[in-house]
Amino acid sequence: MTLIAERLLTTLTDAERARMEKVESVLPALREAAAKADETGEFPVGHIALMREAGLLGLIIPEEFGGLGGGLRDLAGATFTLGSACPSTALAYFFHNTSASRGLLPLEAIEAGLFAEDEVPVIKAFAERLLTNMAGGTWLANFASEEVKSSSANIAIATIATPVEGGWSLSGVKSFGCATGVADYYLVTAKVDGTTDADGLALFLVNRDSEGITNRPKWNGLGMRASANDGVIMENVFVPSEDSLTVPGSFVKMLQMSRGSFVGNQLAIMAVYLGAAQNAYDYALERTTGKTFADTGKTIASSPMHQVIIGNMAERLETAYLWIRRQIELETSEPPLLPKAEVYKQWRIAKGDISEACFQVALGALKACGTSAATMDGVIGRTLRDLAMALVMTFPAERGRLEAASMITQDKENELFASVNS
Amino acid sequence: MTLIAERLLTTLTDAERARMEKVESVLPALREAAAKADETGEFPVGHIALMREAGLLGLIIPEEFGGLGGGLRDLAGATFTLGSACPSTALAYFFHNTSASRGLLPLEAIEAGLFAEDEVPVIKAFAERLLTNMAGGTWLANFASEEVKSSSANIAIATIATPVEGGWSLSGVKSFGCATGVADYYLVTAKVDGTTDADGLALFLVNRDSEGITNRPKWNGLGMRASANDGVIMENVFVPSEDSLTVPGSFVKMLQMSRGSFVGNQLAIMAVYLGAAQNAYDYALERTTGKTFADTGKTIASSPMHQVIIGNMAERLETAYLWIRRQIELETSEPPLLPKAEVYKQWRIAKGDISEACFQVALGALKACGTSAATMDGVIGRTLRDLAMALVMTFPAERGRLEAASMITQDKENELFASVNS
Amino acid sequence: MTLIAERLLTTLTDAERARMEKVESVLPALREAAAKADETGEFPVGHIALMREAGLLGLIIPEEFGGLGGGLRDLAGATFTLGSACPSTALAYFFHNTSASRGLLPLEAIEAGLFAEDEVPVIKAFAERLLTNMAGGTWLANFASEEVKSSSANIAIATIATPVEGGWSLSGVKSFGCATGVADYYLVTAKVDGTTDADGLALFLVNRDSEGITNRPKWNGLGMRASANDGVIMENVFVPSEDSLTVPGSFVKMLQMSRGSFVGNQLAIMAVYLGAAQNAYDYALERTTGKTFADTGKTIASSPMHQVIIGNMAERLETAYLWIRRQIELETSEPPLLPKAEVYKQWRIAKGDISEACFQVALGALKACGTSAATMDGVIGRTLRDLAMALVMTFPAERGRLEAASMITQDKENELFASVNS
Amino acid sequence: MTLIAERLLTTLTDAERARMEKVESVLPALREAAAKADETGEFPVGHIALMREAGLLGLIIPEEFGGLGGGLRDLAGATFTLGSACPSTALAYFFHNTSASRGLLPLEAIEAGLFAEDEVPVIKAFAERLLTNMAGGTWLANFASEEVKSSSANIAIATIATPVEGGWSLSGVKSFGCATGVADYYLVTAKVDGTTDADGLALFLVNRDSEGITNRPKWNGLGMRASANDGVIMENVFVPSEDSLTVPGSFVKMLQMSRGSFVGNQLAIMAVYLGAAQNAYDYALERTTGKTFADTGKTIASSPMHQVIIGNMAERLETAYLWIRRQIELETSEPPLLPKAEVYKQWRIAKGDISEACFQVALGALKACGTSAATMDGVIGRTLRDLAMALVMTFPAERGRLEAASMITQDKENELFASVNS
Repeated sequence: MTLIAERLLTTLTDAERARMEKVESVLPALREAAAKADETGEFPVGHIALMREAGLLGLIIPEEFGGLGGGLRDLAGATFTLGSACPSTALAYFFHNTSASRGLLPLEAIEAGLFAEDEVPVIKAFAERLLTNMAGGTWLANFASEEVKSSSANIAIATIATPVEGGWSLSGVKSFGCATGVADYYLVTAKVDGTTDADGLALFLVNRDSEGITNRPKWNGLGMRASANDGVIMENVFVPSEDSLTVPGSFVKMLQMSRGSFVGNQLAIMAVYLGAAQNAYDYALERTTGKTFADTGKTIASSPMHQVIIGNMAERLETAYLWIRRQIELETSEPPLLPKAEVYKQWRIAKGDISEACFQVALGALKACGTSAATMDGVIGRTLRDLAMALVMTFPAERGRLEAASMITQDKENELFASVNS
Repeated sequence: MTLIAERLLTTLTDAERARMEKVESVLPALREAAAKADETGEFPVGHIALMREAGLLGLIIPEEFGGLGGGLRDLAGATFTLGSACPSTALAYFFHNTSASRGLLPLEAIEAGLFAEDEVPVIKAFAERLLTNMAGGTWLANFASEEVKSSSANIAIATIATPVEGGWSLSGVKSFGCATGVADYYLVTAKVDGTTDADGLALFLVNRDSEGITNRPKWNGLGMRASANDGVIMENVFVPSEDSLTVPGSFVKMLQMSRGSFVGNQLAIMAVYLGAAQNAYDYALERTTGKTFADTGKTIASSPMHQVIIGNMAERLETAYLWIRRQIELETSEPPLLPKAEVYKQWRIAKGDISEACFQVALGALKACGTSAATMDGVIGRTLRDLAMALVMTFPAERGRLEAASMITQDKENELFASVNS
Repeated sequence: MTLIAERLLTTLTDAERARMEKVESVLPALREAAAKADETGEFPVGHIALMREAGLLGLIIPEEFGGLGGGLRDLAGATFTLGSACPSTALAYFFHNTSASRGLLPLEAIEAGLFAEDEVPVIKAFAERLLTNMAGGTWLANFASEEVKSSSANIAIATIATPVEGGWSLSGVKSFGCATGVADYYLVTAKVDGTTDADGLALFLVNRDSEGITNRPKWNGLGMRASANDGVIMENVFVPSEDSLTVPGSFVKMLQMSRGSFVGNQLAIMAVYLGAAQNAYDYALERTTGKTFADTGKTIASSPMHQVIIGNMAERLETAYLWIRRQIELETSEPPLLPKAEVYKQWRIAKGDISEACFQVALGALKACGTSAATMDGVIGRTLRDLAMALVMTFPAERGRLEAASMITQDKENELFASVNS
Repeated sequence: MTLIAERLLTTLTDAERARMEKVESVLPALREAAAKADETGEFPVGHIALMREAGLLGLIIPEEFGGLGGGLRDLAGATFTLGSACPSTALAYFFHNTSASRGLLPLEAIEAGLFAEDEVPVIKAFAERLLTNMAGGTWLANFASEEVKSSSANIAIATIATPVEGGWSLSGVKSFGCATGVADYYLVTAKVDGTTDADGLALFLVNRDSEGITNRPKWNGLGMRASANDGVIMENVFVPSEDSLTVPGSFVKMLQMSRGSFVGNQLAIMAVYLGAAQNAYDYALERTTGKTFADTGKTIASSPMHQVIIGNMAERLETAYLWIRRQIELETSEPPLLPKAEVYKQWRIAKGDISEACFQVALGALKACGTSAATMDGVIGRTLRDLAMALVMTFPAERGRLEAASMITQDKENELFASVNS
């Protein structure tokens, strides 16, 4: 049996195949719920238990912490597969998984000797707690982004953490984060009060039901509507010490361990979009080769305009696969094929180009299928809206290329995180 | 006071200015109703009385028939203006106006001597009836398109008209036509039973409330949601003789009188989209120049990515203006600047290119404004969806260019209407 | 008889028609010499007498100074016509004509009251001398550009003029200027020694054979090879006072009189490229519709690939016409249709877009005609090379859009001329 | 030491590294001769001995026949490396190597049991003769293409082979084939007289100095000028039986053995262009980061326009690498990753996209470097011309996508070779 993830990964190891089969086991439920979820803009809560029971919350957690032991290839294969059925669910699932990097990278940083001896136990305890929870079925939302923008960094952090008896008190607004009100815990990035640079950034595992947390107004998104990414407002939210990672500089040290870009795993978000694009492409092909012209009896797909559009779609779709496959190769090969700076530069272009290519596939599918398929609720309308979000939630190709140009000509990178005043 | 239509037409005559002021008088109401209309997918019925009372239903009807005496420039100016506030209303209004060509072109064909003497009174009566009604405040829907596709013609007609006592009986399905269930009368194109070519095509003014008419299921469009374009099913619908134009060949003879393409006035549909694109552009500029980066205090618009996107948007927007202005010039200049075949060829490219350019403007606005503006109900989300419809309801640039190439290399045009079996 | 310029200008007045007939009278000679001129990279010197005798050196000089009284439309029509036969000659001819602005704009500035009473006679004398010479058959080269680049201005001037007995002494290097060693006089822009801003810029009519002038090494251009644009080195070149315009601020005041951009007339350079693009398009159509496939007997042009390419070419070509026609309209309409800043912004986009569109036409022609036409010396190879120069000698579309974006978002324009140290 | 081929292949085996070092050993000579070779349009004859002595003529010949034992990766690495120095030489070398497939594929077809027992010895003798000769230092030109075009096949064969005493007599015109007049032997595809389909196609090794062969007039190409691809005219040219492969159907059977497309190895021609594109990119970066603006002291590369162009170039260049690397993977992986039809479809898109991307890199380099670099003889001018040839000698992206669309929607492939009447 051919698995959906093989379209992306071409070949799978036996272990990968076993994990992908678990992923496919939840697909029928996702497919069935997708249209309604989009219409109402509600994350289908039943999906959490479904994925927990399939063991998927621990997909990329090492077996020693109780997970399935998957890696980046698995994560990309999973989000791709899920994205072909319900991109919103795939997105929320992706963000759950990104949290794992906050456990895995610190452990790598310890091995690399980046932490002082006395820091190690604290770091280790947090990391293990995080990973064990995830493997055990705790769904994590990942709240980093805020509304304020910085010209020099991708994400600006103004949320403040103040030390209090037995832990920390958090205040701030997180503008975006999937699974708001749905996840069990929120992984929150904040800056320790009084600090001014990235060394002051810290991590907190915040119980969803903590006092002082309210959801922001429901976000009526153009697409990816069922990912519950409303964001939260935190006012003096208490987090116990054991759920905090506040060792100065720990955030920056993690960053050094990732091969491509922080939050690691980022390429798996593009796999969500690619899965959705593949689905729209398949739909358009089936529709246009399945209908015929009244006068000639030839398929709609055979018209010169359709041939041009289908050729372009095929090219755009395959281009997206090429970029993401190369990135997977660059981020997983041992030894590394290229130095980190090269991997990172490649990633900036890849990220923008994949979102652009996926959107173009959806646009081609719209053009090919015509007015009758251009409905709000069908595959064409939903995918076009979902993939329009790819252009803004990740970023447009224009930005990736400019960032690459800047690195190429000035050896200067955009910072990923900045600490700013709100 | 600068009128919105001046952005398109640059200069206005006094008479045009007076007519455009009437158009602008209804704008506040359209603007206010636009978001709700999109959300519910309902044409705001109050708009009909509003526009009727402003005299706008007779905008392009000659004064001798009681109209305002406007021409193609007025129509384009009006749909552009309305499109900047509520593209759905503008679209329905456009289709109302296209009906006028079925009165004006036959009159021109009479003057050109295309009809036999005994045909003239019949033709004239129908034309005058149509024009007088429109000027008098009758809203007309225009039902041509059907679901069946022909490889060689833009519109395939399978609806059949059978002669009955005192008139005709119509049966068929019209898949698309704005103002379904809203317009007072439907202008229906059908083929006389037993005929096999375009000479058998005939026109009928069908009372909306006639027996045998039902609306098709509500069409849940991706965009242009409030234009009430569900279409109708007609089963043995009676139309009195005086509301019919069934003289053999009359349809084809009309066609010969239009300068660019039949249904004349087609360019005014592109003005709807251009108005919407201009609105999205203005919104994006205001938003990105009105927000600043937290670290530098510079406007968001000043970032390198934004400069690229804004430059591209400006270019795409202006390109759309160039194509449409040229087409207006070609279709209104006396004497004609170019032969009809050239005007028509230019129009095929223009039509596709304008829709593509307008959509690209909306896409640029989306990219420029980012995630926070990418909502279902804001200007960005609505315009992106409305302009996605431009790509399928008119057609994509790919098709226009291919049709032009075919004319250039083979002197062969696509037929506009074909008579087919259902 | 249809004149070539009618493709660009659509309609001509009788006077324009008479002038365009003069232009067409020299075409056979230009066509015949074009290939050889490109091969050797030599401006065909005989063309000067040819054009002088046809009166074309005074094409846009008012009749009161002995010229033909043409305007911007004539100039564009002429360079377009010549460009369709020999772009190099058309380019050199364009630069001759740009010199006229240095006579016409000062006269307008006088009328506008920009000069003090005592400055008027000096300004007037220079202007009349310039215009009378041109009308009388003096070919002028126009040397502004230098090799040094400024980030904030389009042209940076480091050439220095020092006052000496009876006139001025010029020293500097002009990197580019058509008709080097061919024109009778060089119109040189320099800065008066000791000045630091644009008020110190001055104009000089330099006799080609003056002592101290040497041609720079022959420039082996990729295209536009026969325009003799090697540039000159000036070492203490004497220019008599009467051939100088050194009134402080006169340069800047001229600038204020032009509607679009300084050197006025700039759009006529784009007409050169457009003429060349039209020629390549015509060639490609004739070639591909004139050859057939051995198996089907259909024309090469009918293949799906050719249909796509030809459709794209037609669209690109027409887009270039649209931009240039609009610019002509904006720069010649009375009263002005738009404020100067708008005209200028439009021009930045137009300039880049026209060069890009023309190049794309040549590229399409290359693709359509295939390997056998891809020779160094045929129409395809020559036009591709000539139009590649359009992208750098004017500028690429990327730059025009960025300049427009900057004006749109920051109301900030690039300066046209800057005074810099060499 | 990093080898040039590593930019393409990322990692090399030790054997590959050894072979690539041989390739790099000839680079200094190629680089030195490149400009002159382009100017004169002459293949530098000394290169043949140079490459023969380096053993490179047997690069992809198995060691058992005396070759270096390289495979497709080696060939791509070699043409890429050579293409970065002298694309013309790389192209001629590529065509020499393509001849190897006419020895290797028949041997594979024998193993696959496609030939009857009595055919085997004949096939085997020809194959071994061919391979041994190549390994022994015989330079082969490969003449397939003719001027006649077929709408349904990529290459149409009208050259006729008639049986004569002791061998065959060939007559026909081969329009294109590198190393005309330079190679020792010409590998000619012809159809046996009286046959009408591909089963009648046959192969002949023709001694360059045979009676009846004349070179076609020197082809003054726009680019790739030194590849000696003038083509030949054959009038009753005798070829001895042992230099012929005329077993009916042998051509078609070979075809079945190739994984991607016949002539196998085709992707290595794209590596020529990619090497050239990389060279232009490197040149443009070095030039624009090495010059500064007079006013700010910042590099030219830092201007907004340059950032946009450089970002686009980087993206285009990397995209070309992605397509070619994937194709290498698809054509060399054991077991095959995808079925042959998929590999072939991918190749059609890849081929066009790579040529387009490479050309766009050269175009970006032209724009970035400006007028002063836009000379006939510099890296920019030469590469732009050489890569313009990529668009016609392979084919434009438009064609590859249309062919893919046709395969996708109709499961119909273009034939590679057709037998036609001249």
